[in-house]
Amino acid sequence: MGSADFEAMWRELTPLGRSAATGGYFRQPFGTAERECQAWFEQQAVSRGLRLERDGNGNTVAWWDAPTGTAEAPERVVSLAMAASDGVSRPQRTAAPERVLTGSHLDSVLDGGAYDGPLGVVSALAAVDELRARGHAPRRSIGVAVFAEEEGSRFGLACLGSRLATGTTTPEQARALRDRDGVGVEDALAATGVEPELGPSRLLDGVDTYLELHVEQGRALGEHPVGMASAIWPHGRYRFDFTGRPDHAGTTRMEDRHDPMLSYAMTVLAANKVARTRGQRATFGRIQVAPNSTNGIASAVTGWLDARAESEAELTAMVADIERQAGERAGRDGTALSVTAESVSGEVRFDADLTGRLADARRWPILPTQAGHDAGILSAAGITSAMLFVRNPTGVSHSPAEHAETADCLAGVAALADVLAELTG
Amino acid sequence: MGSADFEAMWRELTPLGRSAATGGYFRQPFGTAERECQAWFEQQAVSRGLRLERDGNGNTVAWWDAPTGTAEAPERVVSLAMAASDGVSRPQRTAAPERVLTGSHLDSVLDGGAYDGPLGVVSALAAVDELRARGHAPRRSIGVAVFAEEEGSRFGLACLGSRLATGTTTPEQARALRDRDGVGVEDALAATGVEPELGPSRLLDGVDTYLELHVEQGRALGEHPVGMASAIWPHGRYRFDFTGRPDHAGTTRMEDRHDPMLSYAMTVLAANKVARTRGQRATFGRIQVAPNSTNGIASAVTGWLDARAESEAELTAMVADIERQAGERAGRDGTALSVTAESVSGEVRFDADLTGRLADARRWPILPTQAGHDAGILSAAGITSAMLFVRNPTGVSHSPAEHAETADCLAGVAALADVLAELTG
Repeated sequence: MGSADFEAMWRELTPLGRSAATGGYFRQPFGTAERECQAWFEQQAVSRGLRLERDGNGNTVAWWDAPTGTAEAPERVVSLAMAASDGVSRPQRTAAPERVLTGSHLDSVLDGGAYDGPLGVVSALAAVDELRARGHAPRRSIGVAVFAEEEGSRFGLACLGSRLATGTTTPEQARALRDRDGVGVEDALAATGVEPELGPSRLLDGVDTYLELHVEQGRALGEHPVGMASAIWPHGRYRFDFTGRPDHAGTTRMEDRHDPMLSYAMTVLAANKVARTRGQRATFGRIQVAPNSTNGIASAVTGWLDARAESEAELTAMVADIERQAGERAGRDGTALSVTAESVSGEVRFDADLTGRLADARRWPILPTQAGHDAGILSAAGITSAMLFVRNPTGVSHSPAEHAETADCLAGVAALADVLAELTG
Repeated sequence: MGSADFEAMWRELTPLGRSAATGGYFRQPFGTAERECQAWFEQQAVSRGLRLERDGNGNTVAWWDAPTGTAEAPERVVSLAMAASDGVSRPQRTAAPERVLTGSHLDSVLDGGAYDGPLGVVSALAAVDELRARGHAPRRSIGVAVFAEEEGSRFGLACLGSRLATGTTTPEQARALRDRDGVGVEDALAATGVEPELGPSRLLDGVDTYLELHVEQGRALGEHPVGMASAIWPHGRYRFDFTGRPDHAGTTRMEDRHDPMLSYAMTVLAANKVARTRGQRATFGRIQVAPNSTNGIASAVTGWLDARAESEAELTAMVADIERQAGERAGRDGTALSVTAESVSGEVRFDADLTGRLADARRWPILPTQAGHDAGILSAAGITSAMLFVRNPTGVSHSPAEHAETADCLAGVAALADVLAELTG
């Protein structure tokens, strides 16, 4: 593959869903901009003769079938949901060959960066081109995967697509989720033309290895353009609901108030201090206030805590510390507090054998990450998984300023091609 | 007037715009619920033979014309905007008789109470009934006024209708206002069928006295069902815009952040402490966060400070203290702060002669209020104004729990009738 191919793909994808005001991306799952990205991906797959396969969770894989596989004709687009309703027989898990999956996601956080997700997808397509240019004939099928709702920006549960595909999240749990407008997952899927069929996905049948290439989200790679992940920190999202008493902002004496904004504000500062003291991460980036009027004391304030720690014990202890301080302050403010763990993910250690073998041979550094990824979900579900990181010069992520140099991206493509060649040779 | 009449009116009005979920009122200016209240008012006026007059700011007056006035036929609804476009001659300010106005407003804060505003309007109608039952023949016209957007819950500027009518706010200033959906004042007015004609209003021509009856918003009346206002504290609304750097909530080290949520949180606590220490009032009840996502550090946080103080010097000093602390914290957080005074109102002292004469004769207490009112705007514009307060047993205001006992409301009606009789006898 020439660098021109990667750059051409990147040029096509980058304008989609970008805000002219901020330069950031608004590719919310199953929304217009993310669907444009998805259509672009499908067109790229078809133009390469890859076989597209979709599931009823919104996930897609473009297969480069090995000659001995159960491949259908290239360029034939198969919708599993359609196949099911048409009565077409499905490949059985036991009958599927061993397959290697690589890829990432195309959705973004609100006002996010260009690289988080798309770099893994574009690099996977470019690695297919590179392997073909090298004359590589894969003995196992290679799939380029696009997982749905990785960021959790719409339904509040990160890695929703891979969680459903692996059975980590049940269809019942997913059906209980709502976006900010009250829309459910199935309705959102149906609006994109996908017939919803939530649950374990045949896309993963026979998949024994998953490789995810991702832009690094810190500055830990230093002099190395490429590295690998050792583990994902345990992390969780916790909803803090503070309720008080609405009242007039002018006439209510300061000492007569039950103001939940005060309890929330102290909790924000406490979470920050606790995380700094313990060397972990805690953030309040989302809030909802009722009635949210200038001349009224709030009746209720909801804040979402994003917490990450190097161990599950440390995560539990840190959140307990924050919750204790929040509760004490609520007591002093005369407000009530209720804390709900919306999602908690334990530590994921990527396959040490695979990671060590690949990284040691190439002198790539191996480092932990504090960010969740579909690779973590698949790994926890028993699929041997590894992650490649591409250097991020500033470490800025989930932001319009997120960046990777093209030379580093091309090094990532070459690295991914090398690893895929090794795994399917 | 019998208490049955007041209670019947109250029963008709109270269901309009009430949330079944909270029991609170959502009567935003020029919205459906507030329009229902307005239609109810107009029907009440017409059924009493009062002459309705509207201006192009959204304000309405129902006139009980004195026999010697320039009254038009009762029950004739005159739209000033229509009259103007029809070429009908307008009454001239110099030709208008001296007139007395009483009333209040029908809009509410978000999730507000039943009494704030409507009590003054219903009591005014009930006082007209009472005066007629007594056989009172007013020698000066009495108008029952409904002012638009008193709470500022939609366009952010309290007392918008009376500000425009008195020229306190210019049409240009009003045209620059937008609601949360980006709608302007004129479009909002037009959507209700009013032809917008912002600016000084003929409704106030010849008006030399304004009386506003209002539910008390603290518990200062004690044993007295009715009292009067001495003054309105100086108060203002200040927008605090904190901007930081959006980033990943997991991968960004605590020490590398520029998190505006921290600057905001500290400012909320500082404002509370400053107000308590100084014996004044300061509240953050409204916030807006971008991008407001759980796993991202906020890029920007805007909070609105509602500040009130017993003197203008104290208000200025308090806000400066809060702004200084906010700026220092922003400096430590690596965020930027900009503060905008969206509206600032100086102290209003109600007419001491009128207030003293009315209150002393009836042994009503006279007390200051921390809440803004249309009476304050009219007073500052040179119209002799006074306020009657009806006891609020809990002091709760701007809340579904706001309440006044019926017996106290009836005492308020009788008091208003007495005062109107004295002023127009």
